[in-house]
Amino acid sequence: MKVIVDLCLVPMGVGVSVSKYVAACHEILREEGLEITLHAYGTNIEGDWDTVMTAVKKCHERVHDMGAPRITTTIKMGTRTDRSQSMADKVNSVLSRLDDKV
Amino acid sequence: MKVIVDLCLVPMGVGVSVSKYVAACHEILREEGLEITLHAYGTNIEGDWDTVMTAVKKCHERVHDMGAPRITTTIKMGTRTDRSQSMADKVNSVLSRLDDKV
Amino acid sequence: MKVIVDLCLVPMGVGVSVSKYVAACHEILREEGLEITLHAYGTNIEGDWDTVMTAVKKCHERVHDMGAPRITTTIKMGTRTDRSQSMADKVNSVLSRLDDKV
Amino acid sequence: MKVIVDLCLVPMGVGVSVSKYVAACHEILREEGLEITLHAYGTNIEGDWDTVMTAVKKCHERVHDMGAPRITTTIKMGTRTDRSQSMADKVNSVLSRLDDKV
Repeated sequence: MKVIVDLCLVPMGVGVSVSKYVAACHEILREEGLEITLHAYGTNIEGDWDTVMTAVKKCHERVHDMGAPRITTTIKMGTRTDRSQSMADKVNSVLSRLDDKV
Repeated sequence: MKVIVDLCLVPMGVGVSVSKYVAACHEILREEGLEITLHAYGTNIEGDWDTVMTAVKKCHERVHDMGAPRITTTIKMGTRTDRSQSMADKVNSVLSRLDDKV
Repeated sequence: MKVIVDLCLVPMGVGVSVSKYVAACHEILREEGLEITLHAYGTNIEGDWDTVMTAVKKCHERVHDMGAPRITTTIKMGTRTDRSQSMADKVNSVLSRLDDKV
Repeated sequence: MKVIVDLCLVPMGVGVSVSKYVAACHEILREEGLEITLHAYGTNIEGDWDTVMTAVKKCHERVHDMGAPRITTTIKMGTRTDRSQSMADKVNSVLSRLDDKV
């Protein structure tokens, strides 16, 4: 089962700057061979359900190992059986409607 | 690794009433032996990371099997290494502060 | 427009214990006359859109005033025009389906 | 108070394809003069709290007007008082750490 995920991991108890933890997660996701896109409030991930969720678990483990005593993560995850759809397809389906109106 | 999760699964393409799908997920979570609490915008789940995430995957599979062609799920997930904390502990830590002020 | 909200406010840069901030938000929500239910990963709120969103803004302002330099909040918000539905209705519509199967 | 938001609005009861509703929201956000970036699982928005939240309300109203009887929206919203930070700053603070390791 393929899934498109939006991952936003927030380490707690490590101060206000969390970019080094996000960067560490990015490396994990790339090591797992997942297609990812960073945005201003999370990371989009596309891949097989088990691969993605294993990577998310590794992110929690790594961020704890880096010293964060607490983590709260928000994930959105989408699956569909009617047709195959990539992250780029999702963006383009909206953009095409905007172009229609120009 | 223990996790406390807030799960909100939304089937799409099946009309406005989604309670039967939520109920089916509830049964899966109970079958997996997880401690759960239903609220007005999701379900709190407490358990081992792998057990919880396997159950969430089964929820997606079951809801697709029930006829929903598309699902979007929002999950919040919390882990901590500084101490053990149950769902009841989390609620009580807030309530105790409210009682302090009465 | 009526809205049912699930609010999860996370202060950052103040250590791992955040219950006093959540308790402060609870008081604001009650002062605004909103119907609320605390759960293990957030607070359910029911009320008029503007009243709810004004209260959420006050929560951010109060938590900053309490010393949190950064806040990340996750909100789920539901509106519907087909019928009126309370938080209790939402829970009961699921529970009734579970009872059906006993 | 400035806020950075990630908005994901899901119309229910209108079938599986929701891009036309997302496109309509995009237009509202642009009409309000907000800086926005579309990604595969939502839209990042940067602006003044009241302007952003007014636009989000207009999105719900417009999508209901377009025929969606029910909407569930997930929003992440971040505020900070320690320093000013744009959406581009957030992305760059992560990317700079990745570049450090190449």
